[in-house]
Amino acid sequence: MDIEDTLLMIPGPVKVAPRVLRAMSKPMISHRSGEFGAIYSECAELLKEFFQTKNQIAIMTGSGTLGMDAAVAGIIGHEDKIVTISNGKFGERFTEIGERYGKCVPVKFDWGMPFDLDRVEAALEEGAKAVAMVHNETSVGLTNPAKEVGRLAKKYDAVFIVDGISSIGGNEFLTDEWNIDIAITGSQKALAVPPGLAVVSVSPRAEERFLAQSASYYADLKAHLKSARKSPAQTPFTPAVPLFFAMQEALHMAAEEGFAARRERAAKQAESVRSAAKALGIELFPQTNENSHYSNTVTAMKMPEGVSDDKLRGGMKKKGVIVSGGQEQLKGKIFRIGTMGVCSSGDLLRTIQTLELILLKEGNIHSCGVGVEAMSRVLDS
Amino acid sequence: MDIEDTLLMIPGPVKVAPRVLRAMSKPMISHRSGEFGAIYSECAELLKEFFQTKNQIAIMTGSGTLGMDAAVAGIIGHEDKIVTISNGKFGERFTEIGERYGKCVPVKFDWGMPFDLDRVEAALEEGAKAVAMVHNETSVGLTNPAKEVGRLAKKYDAVFIVDGISSIGGNEFLTDEWNIDIAITGSQKALAVPPGLAVVSVSPRAEERFLAQSASYYADLKAHLKSARKSPAQTPFTPAVPLFFAMQEALHMAAEEGFAARRERAAKQAESVRSAAKALGIELFPQTNENSHYSNTVTAMKMPEGVSDDKLRGGMKKKGVIVSGGQEQLKGKIFRIGTMGVCSSGDLLRTIQTLELILLKEGNIHSCGVGVEAMSRVLDS
Repeated sequence: MDIEDTLLMIPGPVKVAPRVLRAMSKPMISHRSGEFGAIYSECAELLKEFFQTKNQIAIMTGSGTLGMDAAVAGIIGHEDKIVTISNGKFGERFTEIGERYGKCVPVKFDWGMPFDLDRVEAALEEGAKAVAMVHNETSVGLTNPAKEVGRLAKKYDAVFIVDGISSIGGNEFLTDEWNIDIAITGSQKALAVPPGLAVVSVSPRAEERFLAQSASYYADLKAHLKSARKSPAQTPFTPAVPLFFAMQEALHMAAEEGFAARRERAAKQAESVRSAAKALGIELFPQTNENSHYSNTVTAMKMPEGVSDDKLRGGMKKKGVIVSGGQEQLKGKIFRIGTMGVCSSGDLLRTIQTLELILLKEGNIHSCGVGVEAMSRVLDS
Repeated sequence: MDIEDTLLMIPGPVKVAPRVLRAMSKPMISHRSGEFGAIYSECAELLKEFFQTKNQIAIMTGSGTLGMDAAVAGIIGHEDKIVTISNGKFGERFTEIGERYGKCVPVKFDWGMPFDLDRVEAALEEGAKAVAMVHNETSVGLTNPAKEVGRLAKKYDAVFIVDGISSIGGNEFLTDEWNIDIAITGSQKALAVPPGLAVVSVSPRAEERFLAQSASYYADLKAHLKSARKSPAQTPFTPAVPLFFAMQEALHMAAEEGFAARRERAAKQAESVRSAAKALGIELFPQTNENSHYSNTVTAMKMPEGVSDDKLRGGMKKKGVIVSGGQEQLKGKIFRIGTMGVCSSGDLLRTIQTLELILLKEGNIHSCGVGVEAMSRVLDS
């Protein structure tokens, strides 16, 4: 595999723009310098636009999971209850984290099925310090109703924690309007930065309800917020400096495009993938309803009749296009295409064209072009 | 400040070689691919040479502190005792971490003073599940007696945890020979990689004594080791891919130089700094004895008579050379120069020459050159 000539179309890490990659090759600077502080502060300000929030932002060195961990470990003590809603792998991760630190009340749906909000409300009625959910369930390509759960969290006075990792900057995500107390994203998704930074926004209400001491030392959100508020801004522990260089450059790119324009582009791109799938007779995987939508950042499709994961994804990889498979119970049953960050129309057309070549070879279609044509109609609309 | 023309001489993050910086600008790859797994495995193998160990290596996305956190959170439950020895900032960090997860027995010495091994033994005699120490105390420039504490850990059957963050690859550090059960380093020290990766080696004995469940979710060492052993090697959560590219390249550089040669170079370079300091009438900060030595990776010196931190470090920074100040209680009292990784003779000579120009301006010396000359004599020996 020649990675310089490979197209990465997985739902994160996503393709990174060359100017962002180049930003990482600047010489190292001290993480306690004014120069670093200025980069941190500028990123935090621009990230507020991404998050649609006025809340304080903390940038932590680690994966998005570190942000989820920090949120729960900072709020939930051994005796505290947390309601965790899941309909895929990452929702279940919140359950695992909740069980690690406190009393977890899981509200579990089948992977890819929409939330039943009555069940969520029934769990919250029993009383809980917090409720956690994944906005965009990457494992199944479904966008969950954060706004509606936010209303319930407010009604039952629970701290509302939302994993926006594959959502923020791609899907509509209104942190403040939806009452989201702690929102989390990762650098490698719609920001189109390499992986390694978690970004967390924290409301004053959540800060008031922090435990006296976080259950975690490294993921101690209180310590991260305190350092972020210093002048110059800092991190409590040595940060991944090159990833901050990359994030600054990527946020400049996003600001140049416009934050709203980027979200609209992701919406159109995801629609174009769905349209191509339909033209090719490929079924979408998740179930939707009035509050739960096909994701704008990742499209999950059922494996076409009679085609193995190895033939489909392995074949595409040989042609230089990497798409994701299903995780855990969905291994071999679905495949997924990401439409986040700086993904272009050209990237998408190459992806569908490559998929068509595989389907042609496997006998699922008899000629090439219908998927590409359907996609192009949406992209050009 | 033009960061492209600034020399970073702090004890981490250290200067990174251009070829390592360039390695980070490769396109993103999937962290679940064979390509990533091969990089992880190659790094882990080469790191064994750095660590002088046969133990399993885990590479985690986060600062060195994440490694310290992972070690303690994995071993120490609420009812378990851990002896933490400190004579500087990072030793005290182990105490903070120990207090977060279990019953901490601090053995505290003044910053920069050698350990009193009798006091360490007295604490261990009372019984403890683990003992933790910092090998090279970056905050004071002192190398602590890991070998001797390792003997005591064995005698009292305690899991031996050593922060080797600013040590491994620079100082002599014999993980297996010294009975070190969990050794930790960070990418931004002697490896000369940008910050953002923690590396941890874990002995079979430590694995046997892991808690059923780590106190931390993200820093769960058991999960990290399990993923590292997969084929292809993985990480439990999305890793900072570009830092793995950088680490692979930096390890190639270290292997080309030779791991032993690199340690010897650091030793000679640190000696050359001490020699220059002596020639310039600057006192070294830490106290040493038969088991505690001036560090080969960071030299801590007292601020010269009548010169403020601002004049010395601020003046050097204006001339493009960044050195570190003292931390916390030592702020304004000491300054520190790192000699780790790919630091060259030219870098060191420029540093001392710049220091001389400041001392001349402040009236501490009457002519330039003695420091440079003394340094050069050591470097050329």
